[in-house]
Amino acid sequence: MPIPAEAFALSPGDTGTLQSQIQRQVAEGILSGRFRRGEKLPSSRGLAAHLGISRITVTLAYTELLADDYLTARGRSGYYVSDGAPHPSGILPRTRQDRVDWNRALARRFSDSAALRKPPDWRSYRYPFLYGQADPALFDHANWRLCAVRALGTRDFGALTSDAVDGDDAMLVDYLSHRLLPRRGIRADPDEILITMGAQNALWLTSEVLLNARRTAVIEEPGYPGLRDILGQSRCTVLPVPVDDRGLDAEAIPEGVHTVFVTPSHHCPTGITMPRDRRETLLARAASEDFLIVEDDYEFEMSFAAAPLPALKALDTEGRVIHVGSFSKSLFPGLRLGYLVGSAAFIREARALRLAVLRHPPGHVQRTAAHFLSLGHHDAMVRRVSRALHDRRRVLEQAIAAHGLTRAGGGGAYGGSSLWMRAPGRDTEEAAMRLRSAGVLIEPGGAFFSGARPPRDHYRLAYSSISADRIPEGVARIAAALA
Amino acid sequence: MPIPAEAFALSPGDTGTLQSQIQRQVAEGILSGRFRRGEKLPSSRGLAAHLGISRITVTLAYTELLADDYLTARGRSGYYVSDGAPHPSGILPRTRQDRVDWNRALARRFSDSAALRKPPDWRSYRYPFLYGQADPALFDHANWRLCAVRALGTRDFGALTSDAVDGDDAMLVDYLSHRLLPRRGIRADPDEILITMGAQNALWLTSEVLLNARRTAVIEEPGYPGLRDILGQSRCTVLPVPVDDRGLDAEAIPEGVHTVFVTPSHHCPTGITMPRDRRETLLARAASEDFLIVEDDYEFEMSFAAAPLPALKALDTEGRVIHVGSFSKSLFPGLRLGYLVGSAAFIREARALRLAVLRHPPGHVQRTAAHFLSLGHHDAMVRRVSRALHDRRRVLEQAIAAHGLTRAGGGGAYGGSSLWMRAPGRDTEEAAMRLRSAGVLIEPGGAFFSGARPPRDHYRLAYSSISADRIPEGVARIAAALA
Repeated sequence: MPIPAEAFALSPGDTGTLQSQIQRQVAEGILSGRFRRGEKLPSSRGLAAHLGISRITVTLAYTELLADDYLTARGRSGYYVSDGAPHPSGILPRTRQDRVDWNRALARRFSDSAALRKPPDWRSYRYPFLYGQADPALFDHANWRLCAVRALGTRDFGALTSDAVDGDDAMLVDYLSHRLLPRRGIRADPDEILITMGAQNALWLTSEVLLNARRTAVIEEPGYPGLRDILGQSRCTVLPVPVDDRGLDAEAIPEGVHTVFVTPSHHCPTGITMPRDRRETLLARAASEDFLIVEDDYEFEMSFAAAPLPALKALDTEGRVIHVGSFSKSLFPGLRLGYLVGSAAFIREARALRLAVLRHPPGHVQRTAAHFLSLGHHDAMVRRVSRALHDRRRVLEQAIAAHGLTRAGGGGAYGGSSLWMRAPGRDTEEAAMRLRSAGVLIEPGGAFFSGARPPRDHYRLAYSSISADRIPEGVARIAAALA
Repeated sequence: MPIPAEAFALSPGDTGTLQSQIQRQVAEGILSGRFRRGEKLPSSRGLAAHLGISRITVTLAYTELLADDYLTARGRSGYYVSDGAPHPSGILPRTRQDRVDWNRALARRFSDSAALRKPPDWRSYRYPFLYGQADPALFDHANWRLCAVRALGTRDFGALTSDAVDGDDAMLVDYLSHRLLPRRGIRADPDEILITMGAQNALWLTSEVLLNARRTAVIEEPGYPGLRDILGQSRCTVLPVPVDDRGLDAEAIPEGVHTVFVTPSHHCPTGITMPRDRRETLLARAASEDFLIVEDDYEFEMSFAAAPLPALKALDTEGRVIHVGSFSKSLFPGLRLGYLVGSAAFIREARALRLAVLRHPPGHVQRTAAHFLSLGHHDAMVRRVSRALHDRRRVLEQAIAAHGLTRAGGGGAYGGSSLWMRAPGRDTEEAAMRLRSAGVLIEPGGAFFSGARPPRDHYRLAYSSISADRIPEGVARIAAALA
């Protein structure tokens, strides 16, 4: 029985090309059993007329399906479902009624996470003062695509497809060792470097390797909420130590702690840069009290207002600093690419844990980044992004001053992509909800604080995903909501 | 001072194009401080003559570097290092002498892993009877590249770049829910599906969510070595239960266990398929004794010798089965893509744990797979690979018979990509080492057994990475080594 042209329809919401829509509908029809082996497809002329598209589009779709042996061509008489086309499975699922007592069955709960949420449709908001997303206007899409295509070539076949077990892409590690890390003042051999699924994964691996229920970790207060989730899993004691206008107060770290987590380049969330003398104090205390330091260097590239200070790891003469880097800010977060730098004895254990948990970050992702970095596109992009952030920052500061909004702390002197704000006496959680309906997204600050009753009057204003021309109106709406 | 053409050299081992080599050398020279702002590059004619390449190649490289503001062009006088080019950091690393007592500092050790190792240069061996790697001859490279390029387009920008927090690619989840899982007889809504970094990551998340030091997990003996690493981390009691010629013996599972890990489609490493009646027995015991089953369905697609049985999850009426799938065998392992299917209460916790550990698999990887699957290329490739494996299997069985080698167990009746072998009285670990120098890679079987003194006379012969024409000579060499 011939398959009628009416079995096909184009859907306006589909993101694929017309050709791929037809291809997919034929494959689906065959795999679901609606189109059977030996049945005749509509003629390319007939289907094109029915769908109101060009005949060549239909022919190209059919030709692709020939190559995959879904269809077969019989001389001039047309296209048929191939005898080699896959059969539908014919297995019918049984009706299922959950009889497991999951409260009892689950060994541990992880779903009370403190992670920051954002509306999935945030791109449709006009004033997204939202942290840590890629901006299509700043991203060097064209060169990224070229590098990705190169990494898909036959020369890079091994890097693309191989099970590397616990290994990393040699080209990416080489770039980090010889090019990127030296610019942070860090000297590291390949066995002191591990590629991770972003900084999140680097922090998690570090926490699992270093901490347990008998150990104490220091975190910054306020600080990165994701880190509290991570440390919770290691069951260690978590000790928040206050941040002042020079970053984490090294003198305030009590005795007997095991590991100190710190963001010296740009403190999260205030943007404060820890000055050189305090870095030295922190390192001296680590040496005298024998603790380790985990340096989350997540945004050092965005230092448009002053040259970045050397990393803590660059000042470390005793191997006490574990350095965490990320490409989420300087490339894009969906890449999930970061790295750990530390003593070989530490990296060996982190690597073995990564092997059990996920093996390795995908080969193609690593090789694409290696090409993009080594051709200099990354540096060029960092400069472009920094210039844009610098502009936006000026506009934002003017708007803030014009509307009398209040900065909190003294952050942002070196750059960064957000400002830490305070609205005394206001509930920013509630204001954020109201602002949503005015097209404005801000981040309430409560999530950055430990403890059961965090202050509710802070918020973060990020300028990495909003264009400069929209900032004044966005700030005006925020001022109105907080008035 | 002009930069001399002699500052450049082509390296024959470099995998990049000539243009990219020049581009990279200029970028490196600038970033390392060897080439300074304002210095004049060699003329395109001079550099081309020095390197013995076409002048247009040099011009194209220079043009790319103009776009990234490494170089600037001054009329007819040539190219100069741009005033906007990045400065080298100038930070000098301090000398480091590790003073941390890492034996004391590390909370846990992970590096005594049982994972199977293979020589990193395995592709250079002529007879690689090696499991689980992609074969360039079978992989549909052209269509994968087309799908990857589509997923790099501006329409898929969000999927490519976004921080999805704990979310998955909607297109990929939709394909699994509506197309792939129904063919295994499985009905699952999106909140019952989680995308993972391969089956390894799926098994790890499951173990962490379900097990702890007070619980017992059953594994197959022999079984997948990576699973023992994973369970070790949860600190549960691990109980190996023997596999007979019908797979895991459901009757031999003692009372009081919490979770049973099983590979019913193709048991690892024997390739045995668990028959329908034993699947029903296993499910009945799970219901009466209230345990959970984790089904690792890692290679069901490779059922070229008989139609695959429905998944255990398809027969599960009580929500007791957690189903693990992988694209490592049907696409390629370097992709690191798999999935978990289970009750929503379980998936919620696995998703929250994945968020803390790594957030989500990279967006581009997920979207590329979604395109490849939905266009039917995956099914076409599975059929192509299955046909090739079928051929290789026939050749392998003939060669084994001709040389009088011994199969172990009754595996492989449904297909698969390896045979489980025995060499009574021989040490296969030692034979494998000797065979390496004869260009042959086999996998000694000891790693698949639990316990301190595993049998040393088993080995696995995989035919997924060796072409049919090399199998007879490879087997002849193995027979000689084991004689």
